[in-house]
Amino acid sequence: MSRADTEATTPCTTMSCTTEAERAALHHALDLAAAPGVPAGPNPRVGCVLLAPDGRILGEGRHRGAGTAHAEVDALRSATGPVRGATALVTLEPCDHHGRTGPCTQALRDAGIARVVVARRDPNPVAAGGLDTLREAGIDVAVSEDPQLTARAEELLRGWEHGLVHHRPLVTAKLALTLDGRAAAADGTSRWITGPAARAEVHDLRECCDAVLVGTGTARLDAPQLTARHEDGTLRARQPLRVVMGEGEAPALPTLPGAGEALRLRTRDPEAALEDLFDRGIRHVLVEGGPTLAAAFLTAGLVDELIVHLAPSLLGAGPAGIGDLGITTITDRLDLELRDLRPLPTPDGPTDLRLLLQPRTR
Amino acid sequence: MSRADTEATTPCTTMSCTTEAERAALHHALDLAAAPGVPAGPNPRVGCVLLAPDGRILGEGRHRGAGTAHAEVDALRSATGPVRGATALVTLEPCDHHGRTGPCTQALRDAGIARVVVARRDPNPVAAGGLDTLREAGIDVAVSEDPQLTARAEELLRGWEHGLVHHRPLVTAKLALTLDGRAAAADGTSRWITGPAARAEVHDLRECCDAVLVGTGTARLDAPQLTARHEDGTLRARQPLRVVMGEGEAPALPTLPGAGEALRLRTRDPEAALEDLFDRGIRHVLVEGGPTLAAAFLTAGLVDELIVHLAPSLLGAGPAGIGDLGITTITDRLDLELRDLRPLPTPDGPTDLRLLLQPRTR
Repeated sequence: MSRADTEATTPCTTMSCTTEAERAALHHALDLAAAPGVPAGPNPRVGCVLLAPDGRILGEGRHRGAGTAHAEVDALRSATGPVRGATALVTLEPCDHHGRTGPCTQALRDAGIARVVVARRDPNPVAAGGLDTLREAGIDVAVSEDPQLTARAEELLRGWEHGLVHHRPLVTAKLALTLDGRAAAADGTSRWITGPAARAEVHDLRECCDAVLVGTGTARLDAPQLTARHEDGTLRARQPLRVVMGEGEAPALPTLPGAGEALRLRTRDPEAALEDLFDRGIRHVLVEGGPTLAAAFLTAGLVDELIVHLAPSLLGAGPAGIGDLGITTITDRLDLELRDLRPLPTPDGPTDLRLLLQPRTR
Repeated sequence: MSRADTEATTPCTTMSCTTEAERAALHHALDLAAAPGVPAGPNPRVGCVLLAPDGRILGEGRHRGAGTAHAEVDALRSATGPVRGATALVTLEPCDHHGRTGPCTQALRDAGIARVVVARRDPNPVAAGGLDTLREAGIDVAVSEDPQLTARAEELLRGWEHGLVHHRPLVTAKLALTLDGRAAAADGTSRWITGPAARAEVHDLRECCDAVLVGTGTARLDAPQLTARHEDGTLRARQPLRVVMGEGEAPALPTLPGAGEALRLRTRDPEAALEDLFDRGIRHVLVEGGPTLAAAFLTAGLVDELIVHLAPSLLGAGPAGIGDLGITTITDRLDLELRDLRPLPTPDGPTDLRLLLQPRTR
């Protein structure tokens, strides 16, 4: 077991606590990392803020993708005055290895940084160990234990971390269902099963994922744009890759200025599709449907989380929200673990439910 | 407008507060009214406790059905010593009319009762006005404002009160569904879609309703007992009338010692069935299924509340949990108001959800 492995699971008892100013600066660093200019994909999204002992911000930076400066170096370069004695707030533990750029630990030491506070340890064994190196160099180090900061950092990095461990993209599947499991009425109409709050979340999901995936059936029937839009219909700054997969015929996705690139994958095999997307740098995929595609990913055991928007309505007829799973008897049912449950109230309308679930047997 | 109507909606500002001993005695009176010996049906379930000024219980009573003594008179008769100056705690406002028995207000006055505390006003205009009569006779009166007592009294009396207003039984429908709206797997197996907590609630519902209703399809396929059972399988003390309705063929319900009477209604019309049951004294019906019967009641607008036990499982195929509602397009969907939502955790198993809903347009 390498030293990095040991450190990753052992609490650092020598670490100090963080101040309120540091936590505020870490939130700012997370904002920098989450901004649209920071590409998703195979590199972690990282932000960095340099704080003077009196609380002034001396510099800020972010990592803009493979081959560009890491966030720490970007922040050091942005500083217009001296940074000796400053504190660096970084969303991810500084790297300690020679990749396409030099180790950030060295850059921070060279600049005379006195203290480094991170929101998340680096789970990548190749790059980890940065905090130990810094501490051994006499720099004060801390990992924030603020639950809100931890959650934000985890959320921002989870596609990248999933890729490190599983060598395939993280898969979120989303379904909109009536209480009786219908995706549409008998005549095929489905707008809208769910209310505005549920539909807004779909655009949030599209914005935070690297790619949105639909089957050829959905491409044919719904002619979706697959863009992340604001409530007023305008495009958001970050847009996912738009993917239609399957062997059936399907129209090309509309070409829209500001929309993500469109991709056609001529396979109905979820594993093959994910392999292709992973090779393209995609780390988080949103499977939007329809029922056949969702069923294919569920059957293949390739759904990491399922978000169900459940409308408190009944249709009694119409297409099922989930296609055939190859299940014929009750004991073979696909059980899911309910991770989160909350109502999505609609003004003057029914309250949809949002369920976050994970397949139980994986 | 009669005096009774005015009183029912006007707050009684002259009323005094209740003591802790009185609230405890009211809970006891509710226990008496809810006990298996008190029949459900066309008469309200009422209990009464007589409390001495020093807190001793002097007597207790309950109403055992049409033609028998009211709870107040039953309590007065049960007292072995003098009750002059005592407080009467009654779950429902004492009646003020000459029915098959004399007015309870008179009986309480004659006995020298000094104070009367009730959990619920009488919504029946024929019998109401008891508190006013008592107050005019110089007896101190109070209505408990304790929310727990109010809720218990409402729960106990709601079938009876519904009958007064709507002249048909209150209808609770219950469905057990997977997340994709299935009532069973493709081979027809359905045991068990939901966990023990959901199944225990079904027995609670059977115990508190006057009648349990299934369609001929369910009677054929599931051969249900329709008894209210404890967890160990033994019968509970209170059992509902067991009803199979529909025009199809169905086997007779099993004859079981201790089970409720079995009834066969040869109609598929929910309104006709409810009229028949109301005439038999039934005030609260539990519609247990199957999908066709539930759909018939929903389509007829005759479901007052819908309880859905939603299992976080997927089947992808199998019979739908709700039959055809005659809905063909999305804008005609049947919207429900979500009144309550709670998880029903299963040890080492998936957590079912319990949804309490009411149809929106009634």
